[in-house]
Amino acid sequence: MAKEVTSREENYSQWYNNLVIKADLAENSAVRGCMVIKPYGYAIWEKIQAQLDKMFKETGHVNAYFPLFIPKSFLSKEAEHVEGFAKECAVVTHHRLMQDRDGKGLVVDPEAKLEEELVIRPTSETIIWNTYKNWITSYRDLPVLCNQWANVVRWEMRTRLFLRTAEFLWQEGHTAHATQQEAIDEANLIVNIYAAFAREWMAVPVLVGQKSASERFAGAEDTLCIEAMMQDGKALQAGTSHFLGQNFAKAFDVQFAGKDGKLEYVWATSWGVSTRLMGALIMTHSDDNGLVLPPKLAPVQVVMVPIYKGEEELNAIIERMRELKKTLETKGVSVKIDDRDNVRSGFKFAEWELKGVPVRFAIGPRDMQHNTVEVARRDTLEKQSVAQEGIAEYVEKLLKEIQANIYQKALTFREEHTCKVDSYEEFKTRIEDGGFFLCHWDGTAETEEKIKEETKATIRCIPFDGEKEEGLCMISGKASKQRVVFARAY
Amino acid sequence: MAKEVTSREENYSQWYNNLVIKADLAENSAVRGCMVIKPYGYAIWEKIQAQLDKMFKETGHVNAYFPLFIPKSFLSKEAEHVEGFAKECAVVTHHRLMQDRDGKGLVVDPEAKLEEELVIRPTSETIIWNTYKNWITSYRDLPVLCNQWANVVRWEMRTRLFLRTAEFLWQEGHTAHATQQEAIDEANLIVNIYAAFAREWMAVPVLVGQKSASERFAGAEDTLCIEAMMQDGKALQAGTSHFLGQNFAKAFDVQFAGKDGKLEYVWATSWGVSTRLMGALIMTHSDDNGLVLPPKLAPVQVVMVPIYKGEEELNAIIERMRELKKTLETKGVSVKIDDRDNVRSGFKFAEWELKGVPVRFAIGPRDMQHNTVEVARRDTLEKQSVAQEGIAEYVEKLLKEIQANIYQKALTFREEHTCKVDSYEEFKTRIEDGGFFLCHWDGTAETEEKIKEETKATIRCIPFDGEKEEGLCMISGKASKQRVVFARAY
Repeated sequence: MAKEVTSREENYSQWYNNLVIKADLAENSAVRGCMVIKPYGYAIWEKIQAQLDKMFKETGHVNAYFPLFIPKSFLSKEAEHVEGFAKECAVVTHHRLMQDRDGKGLVVDPEAKLEEELVIRPTSETIIWNTYKNWITSYRDLPVLCNQWANVVRWEMRTRLFLRTAEFLWQEGHTAHATQQEAIDEANLIVNIYAAFAREWMAVPVLVGQKSASERFAGAEDTLCIEAMMQDGKALQAGTSHFLGQNFAKAFDVQFAGKDGKLEYVWATSWGVSTRLMGALIMTHSDDNGLVLPPKLAPVQVVMVPIYKGEEELNAIIERMRELKKTLETKGVSVKIDDRDNVRSGFKFAEWELKGVPVRFAIGPRDMQHNTVEVARRDTLEKQSVAQEGIAEYVEKLLKEIQANIYQKALTFREEHTCKVDSYEEFKTRIEDGGFFLCHWDGTAETEEKIKEETKATIRCIPFDGEKEEGLCMISGKASKQRVVFARAY
Repeated sequence: MAKEVTSREENYSQWYNNLVIKADLAENSAVRGCMVIKPYGYAIWEKIQAQLDKMFKETGHVNAYFPLFIPKSFLSKEAEHVEGFAKECAVVTHHRLMQDRDGKGLVVDPEAKLEEELVIRPTSETIIWNTYKNWITSYRDLPVLCNQWANVVRWEMRTRLFLRTAEFLWQEGHTAHATQQEAIDEANLIVNIYAAFAREWMAVPVLVGQKSASERFAGAEDTLCIEAMMQDGKALQAGTSHFLGQNFAKAFDVQFAGKDGKLEYVWATSWGVSTRLMGALIMTHSDDNGLVLPPKLAPVQVVMVPIYKGEEELNAIIERMRELKKTLETKGVSVKIDDRDNVRSGFKFAEWELKGVPVRFAIGPRDMQHNTVEVARRDTLEKQSVAQEGIAEYVEKLLKEIQANIYQKALTFREEHTCKVDSYEEFKTRIEDGGFFLCHWDGTAETEEKIKEETKATIRCIPFDGEKEEGLCMISGKASKQRVVFARAY
């Protein structure tokens, strides 16, 4: 099966597209730009959701649900926001179809035109702040710490499965605070939750930092983000957390009475990660044989393949596998026994490699005799014969090792493809090979725009943990307080 | 607080609306017919979701995600289906807004008209069967057992929070099978899962049965359902499971090669429950003081209210409460300590009653002295002084008792409001008082329609566990094989 996947070297983009389809993660639907997330892909997304949801709740957030539709007039209330989203949104204009009298089939009923058009939410700040208006009157009503898991629509012209689709799934947090500092702290808290999740669960090393003004969310005063490096050296923005100041509170007139009785506008944040994370996960770890999934997010952690001749042998092996499965499950390891009798074991091996299952067991007659298991790990493709006794502890340890190893591998890759560059000439040459470039920048939108136009590279972030080394902008020669991260991006 | 809730006797409908708002479950949004599900309401929905999801997975189902949009032409492919849904759907016609040149603000960009209009899914049979077409070629690809948790839109003219909203949340299962019998079995399996969930988790007694042909889902060959009785004697359809025959397989040309190589159309089911369950939950158990939640679905199972004078006393009580909370949590009981110092305990009592928390602890100085707790149960409003020692076991038992008690209460209510009626004259009089009526019906749509027109009562179901008593139709006098359930319904 893996033969049908183009190699990364040959065509990275094609490799990714192949992988998503062949590993049964998602596919394009009949609706332009919208994907179908297939059960195997969705099972990974469910694990992502469950862990993030837990982290949000542990930090005091609650879930709620707000309407899919946004009245057109709401979008206009925040000037930058409308600028950012009006050009690519799905607009509902009618609420009924009818059979055409001239036999043309189903047509829009002209009499069912809406008084005001509705936009499918591209993000929910406007409808939510219009709601918060009725929830918040006093400092005692604050903070409001809501999150929602929802679908959103942005009418992208060029779409790619998981990375950029017209409809996608995400979570969007929308919080309201009494003070500026509290809102800033919230935005920071969340970007750090995103970073911890990416590192510890997805095994994806990320940079945490601040966006430049030009790259901010439409309507935000500050956008924080996590940025990951894909295997082609391009950056992928994997999550953003916005400090919105009082912009939306002012647009929707949301004020609260403080302890002193004085009215003040509420401070806001919003933050989100989406099914785009699936793209990051796939592109960070996978290889030419297929997916490589981090054990913590793999729907199946161990797959067992029997090697047998004849039904009797098969039955004995399957029985043994069931026992091992039980033992592993007591340690919380998820196991699948592949007992299909219509495909050969070589086919099964390739298929589970393609699907990125972290650990594969093969058990044949010799293993039955010696009470052993052939254990293959997906990340290194190494095989080893292991005693069945104590196998659960072995696997537990192995899964941790794989989780750590793929993180380390990705981190090493990123480090090897990150460098400081001080000359724009050098930058222009080296950007062609991909990677992150730490450069001095004078802080102006003009310089940033020039670099983007000439090299397609953008400022991914002003990193939080970057050394505070002063220098001179590689373009203008003006003073710069710290290096920022440039890269081409998805 | 409870005073703001109209009593059931005064105005049942008003009581329900009040309750949903006052208990912070949901509210109407700025978008006609669309609701905001507030955190407390959403927390209940999350518990409903979690348990149902578990039950679906235990029976071999997997989750997936299909597009929000359905091309207009897809709807037309199944004749009855389009008839059922085309008249009340949100239609997307454009993909861009623009600033009007005449300064009228944001308008639809006429150049961004879609080639084919898209309908927001009112249900997903069409887009899913169009997808299954590519998934299914052989008997080896069957069964396909997918479910999705999603939002759907039906442009209802008269909406009510949870019961009937333009947008609602639901799960929709869509399965594909090699044989008719397997699909029929699946539809039965699911309706029984729904019934078990309603009874065991929601503590809502339900009838399980089959819909009459006129009440079937648009496109189904058979619709099974669970029906609950609300406290005003009206029926509420709480879940449906459809055997779709080969209708959608034929509409979307989904055929598979059997073991013998012969091509055959695939057999289908679809099934769903929605946020409407919230309405059933509220209306079945609640009283004039507010919500009554079944312990198994209550976000907070025990609330603790300190009764104190002065900070020192408060601190001591809160400390004790924290210890009790820990003990209760080891038993899996969810606890909230209400330590607010700006409202009085009487206010807190009323508020938590309104919110339906099953058990309330009050601890005052005398309780501190005697190591007791005043335990109040929400269902009966009874109070009792209980020793702190062994309180966790006491609460565990009490929660089970409350769960059983409210189920029994609802069941008794239903039984008291269910009767056999053989004369249409009697039926017409008694239907005014609400309740379920077991009547003989001749099986024709004409009789059914006449009864509906004259009494607003519909056949809720032909019950599975009804006695197979033969008789004569109360209208036509023709032979009938079993009584069916008539009621007015939500």
